[in-house]
Amino acid sequence: MSTGRGIIRDAKGGGRHTGRRPGNSGTREAILEAARGEFATHGFDRATIRGIAAVADVDSALVLHYFGCKAQLFGDAISIPMEPAEIVRRFGADRGGVGATMVRFFLEGWEKGENRRQLVALLRSAMTNDDALERVREYLDRRVFGPVTRELALPDGELRATLVGSQLIGLAMMRYVARIEPLASASLDDLVAAIGPSVQRYLTGDLAAGDSR
Amino acid sequence: MSTGRGIIRDAKGGGRHTGRRPGNSGTREAILEAARGEFATHGFDRATIRGIAAVADVDSALVLHYFGCKAQLFGDAISIPMEPAEIVRRFGADRGGVGATMVRFFLEGWEKGENRRQLVALLRSAMTNDDALERVREYLDRRVFGPVTRELALPDGELRATLVGSQLIGLAMMRYVARIEPLASASLDDLVAAIGPSVQRYLTGDLAAGDSR
Repeated sequence: MSTGRGIIRDAKGGGRHTGRRPGNSGTREAILEAARGEFATHGFDRATIRGIAAVADVDSALVLHYFGCKAQLFGDAISIPMEPAEIVRRFGADRGGVGATMVRFFLEGWEKGENRRQLVALLRSAMTNDDALERVREYLDRRVFGPVTRELALPDGELRATLVGSQLIGLAMMRYVARIEPLASASLDDLVAAIGPSVQRYLTGDLAAGDSR
Repeated sequence: MSTGRGIIRDAKGGGRHTGRRPGNSGTREAILEAARGEFATHGFDRATIRGIAAVADVDSALVLHYFGCKAQLFGDAISIPMEPAEIVRRFGADRGGVGATMVRFFLEGWEKGENRRQLVALLRSAMTNDDALERVREYLDRRVFGPVTRELALPDGELRATLVGSQLIGLAMMRYVARIEPLASASLDDLVAAIGPSVQRYLTGDLAAGDSR
């Protein structure tokens, strides 16, 4: 099986990423990083494999070798390191604070300046291109809602996971994309206190009874 | 002050809207209806005043007379008949079921086929054009969050209103735009039971204590 190394360009600016080696995982990550930037700047439709390859300082063929097509690359680029199912797992049987932790984890992911700029752009791309939206849907199913559902092992697990998704995606839209006040500048602690119980209820409460836990 | 009637075109297809008269409010509504369709079909950037005027069967000058510019027309076009503050008002001092009612009202607005198609398109437009997003923000502030805040007359009223907005907009994104299952095909009753208590808590609960009512 080809490692793809044969078609890596000579690293003109190899010192940019300290310690990065042109091995498989380093190259793959560099392409993903470039893709996030390009999708963020140009949107899904206008970003190109060629442009992404140029930023990552590799050949277009290598990008296609790793990711197949632009839509697949987009799907992989949005897979930021966030494993909501891991949070549920960590709480085990005692799930009292899992809602608050989930909200805090989600917000902390967005608060980092560079993350935020890219996530906003990716969310905008996903809203305007059906291919991109389909990849977001696949990603959420496979990496977020599916694992959370399995980890919860509760009736209506799938509905629970997507209800959590609805609250968190709406929060991101209002706070980071539309920047509506006072939600946009509320403190993390205030938001965790306000929204944590909703997420807790979606994850572990009685959905039919309107009970809170 | 001009009523604008002087530049209404001869109604070639005047029978389309039964009972509609070419008076101020009928014409204004016809333009808004045309604008919703054009923004939904072409997006904010590609929709034109000329195209909207043609669909409404009026002169472009009349559209500008009523709405000033495309962004303002967009802002007015998204003002679907939905008065969340009226729901809060209706419940008066006894606010026990206001959350469930708000969720049901919101979902019923989206469930109508024509509404849904247009709302999805408007949401997509708003995500991709800063002018459109600014109009959405203005509209939400002026017509939704502001009035709800005043009607609630509670501490943190503004934050409460925008928290409700975050849950409902996220719900619309997941159910109607991304169509993620099982949220996309859950029954209205199930969603009202699941999400009503969250909205109730945002509107009337103790946001800091993580209490449910």
